[in-house]
Amino acid sequence: MGSKDKGPDVFGERAAGNGMLSRRIFIQRAVLAGAAGMGASGASAEPLTVARWMKEPGAPFTGYGQPSSFEKAARTIPAPANPGTLGVGTARTPLQLLDGTITPNGLHFDRSHSGTPEIDPNQHRLVIHGLVKRPLVFTMEALARYPRESRIAFIECGGNSGALYAAQAQPLNAPAIHGLVSCAEWTGVRLSTILDEAGIEPSAKWVVAEGADAAAMSRSIPLAKAMDDALLCLYQNGEKVRPANGYPLRLLLPGVEGNMNVKWLRRLKLVDAPIMSKDETSKYTILLKDGKAWQFVLPMEVKSIITQPSPGLALKGPGFYEISGLAWSGKGRIRQLEVSADGGKSWAPAALQEPVLSKALTRFRAAWQWDGGPAVLQSRATDETGMVQPSRAQFVAERGLRGIYHYNAIASWRIDEKGEASNVYA
Amino acid sequence: MGSKDKGPDVFGERAAGNGMLSRRIFIQRAVLAGAAGMGASGASAEPLTVARWMKEPGAPFTGYGQPSSFEKAARTIPAPANPGTLGVGTARTPLQLLDGTITPNGLHFDRSHSGTPEIDPNQHRLVIHGLVKRPLVFTMEALARYPRESRIAFIECGGNSGALYAAQAQPLNAPAIHGLVSCAEWTGVRLSTILDEAGIEPSAKWVVAEGADAAAMSRSIPLAKAMDDALLCLYQNGEKVRPANGYPLRLLLPGVEGNMNVKWLRRLKLVDAPIMSKDETSKYTILLKDGKAWQFVLPMEVKSIITQPSPGLALKGPGFYEISGLAWSGKGRIRQLEVSADGGKSWAPAALQEPVLSKALTRFRAAWQWDGGPAVLQSRATDETGMVQPSRAQFVAERGLRGIYHYNAIASWRIDEKGEASNVYA
Repeated sequence: MGSKDKGPDVFGERAAGNGMLSRRIFIQRAVLAGAAGMGASGASAEPLTVARWMKEPGAPFTGYGQPSSFEKAARTIPAPANPGTLGVGTARTPLQLLDGTITPNGLHFDRSHSGTPEIDPNQHRLVIHGLVKRPLVFTMEALARYPRESRIAFIECGGNSGALYAAQAQPLNAPAIHGLVSCAEWTGVRLSTILDEAGIEPSAKWVVAEGADAAAMSRSIPLAKAMDDALLCLYQNGEKVRPANGYPLRLLLPGVEGNMNVKWLRRLKLVDAPIMSKDETSKYTILLKDGKAWQFVLPMEVKSIITQPSPGLALKGPGFYEISGLAWSGKGRIRQLEVSADGGKSWAPAALQEPVLSKALTRFRAAWQWDGGPAVLQSRATDETGMVQPSRAQFVAERGLRGIYHYNAIASWRIDEKGEASNVYA
Repeated sequence: MGSKDKGPDVFGERAAGNGMLSRRIFIQRAVLAGAAGMGASGASAEPLTVARWMKEPGAPFTGYGQPSSFEKAARTIPAPANPGTLGVGTARTPLQLLDGTITPNGLHFDRSHSGTPEIDPNQHRLVIHGLVKRPLVFTMEALARYPRESRIAFIECGGNSGALYAAQAQPLNAPAIHGLVSCAEWTGVRLSTILDEAGIEPSAKWVVAEGADAAAMSRSIPLAKAMDDALLCLYQNGEKVRPANGYPLRLLLPGVEGNMNVKWLRRLKLVDAPIMSKDETSKYTILLKDGKAWQFVLPMEVKSIITQPSPGLALKGPGFYEISGLAWSGKGRIRQLEVSADGGKSWAPAALQEPVLSKALTRFRAAWQWDGGPAVLQSRATDETGMVQPSRAQFVAERGLRGIYHYNAIASWRIDEKGEASNVYA
């Protein structure tokens, strides 16, 4: 009789230093066999206990389901900069409590500049104007009659992981550092379909997208991107887009920094040059060492993070653990993911969960035998264009530490002898 | 100035009778251009109106988000057979209000035989016993330490679309007929990993799965399926499995009829023959014309349904419409989907949304120019094994109308001159 209150005992092939095992452990079942740990709790298989909930009828049906009352997964909401701006800031996805790649709609991250407007979809309009032959005004109902398409895509705030620009590593967990990235199946109308119907003037080179929130979030988008894979989204993971994510209409620019995926979209104005809005000049630009800044750096760079283990999820003693996390690139598919348990001295290839989709989160998994000693866990992603996540030293050497946005260097969790994880620079 | 309170005006290539257009409309942007309908409402692009919600701060952040108060999408819950059995029955996915392929967790269908138990995950155990070398008892925490994998999979109740066994077509909408199918990204531990650890005795041929609800739902599963792609699921669309879908642990048997995907899984007993439980003998068997019944018909057969248009979504006058729906097969991928607007006289190929995944819902879309006259819309799916959805006549000729389960014949919506859709047999 075995009681599995511990994890599996594994005898896998060594793949890199400090306990990294071959990922073949995931496809060779035999390596796990014959390892039935005789647990300590003495629980017995038979007779089976019959819990209270098997002796009474369960709850009736509900129209719209909710998580178990035993689950506490919620977005974390940092305190606002001042008490008058409750809707200005972020609600961060609890990445360490999730698995797979889809972010459930209730936990999709939310960065707002003036709170979430409560928009009546019957009053909302999308206006197409500026350098077009035929300005158009769409009701949501009319827009919904156009051909649609779906795609699974990540959205990452340009400021995600900005905490790692701090000179000293801060005691923060995965959502506090990296929780401004999420992934959903988005469905809507190709922007190109609508712009073709409006008729693009030859002088049009950019599209200004404006949201219907009180911040009137405005960003200039190159026309080429608008005509490529931009989507006017009505649906998020099957149902209508959530209010915090842009209801009733959100612009999706696959792979491009979050706030260009304008929420509560109310107009698209075709222009001949970017309008240099606040959020593409004083904000959302990449400040370099020499005080100059890059503007309009659109795709989010190749990146990865380890979500399990991570701070707050203490390891329960030496033994087998799956190291799991997420990788993505604004430029396409993830080609390779490597994991290190010794702070980057040696690397083992991780398994990528199929299907690996372009500009979507990719779940990776690696096998690790923790010996109970200190370890530094890192992940390193390579995308299909050949871009590789830089080390923090390489990143700092190129960009310095004055920035806020587009941080994509390799991140590190230190595991101490108690099994606790913490944010470190390594 | 154009006001798009109507859909697009489209001049597409004819693909089949009664207005079916070439699906190339979806990839040739030009066919939509030059069709800016001059709408009737006289709405003007400029000056843009500034709605109330742009003049006041929006709502603050929330830990767990909810749909817009303007959206009413909910599962439909037929009245129980008797008032003492509120948790016995179904909650049906509102397929006609969704798009894409992922079902949001709050709207995943739910078929329960004794309501939804409120299970404390710290008290819940999974027992592996019977014909194994080492019986094992797992806490949920221990199970979570094993290597996991994710897959997007549909689950369809064996009784889905059973209303179409009625001799006369009933006035029902899409969820009332077809709403017992949903699709999610499921994440968990391969059942084969755990069975290998327990050690399978050579005499074991079946696995009995039992749920921890008051019905103790029990089904016998062939060992070959258990060792193939069965998954012990802890996560559903990223977050922990929902109570109505099996929290804290659900068995996923990709492609196999719904109730074998046992919810609230509490034990797996390896046996040498099926136990002939109530739900594999008196229920969930396929009653044939001659009074005999097929047992253990595991995979759900190739099938498709049109979700838009469908009853309750009236067409707003002649013009372009996208016909959209879902196709799936318990045996693998969907290879082809055809749509008819003339009750099956002629068929046009529909576009399949990529990625087309095995044993997952596939969204299809076809282009239709409604001339305002009567039409009968049908969809016909073919899977990668070559199985084709039968016509209703073929289905009835083979199986008769005495059954309840595994109805997969071509379904029909009639569109009348007012644009209303209704369930018909054609």
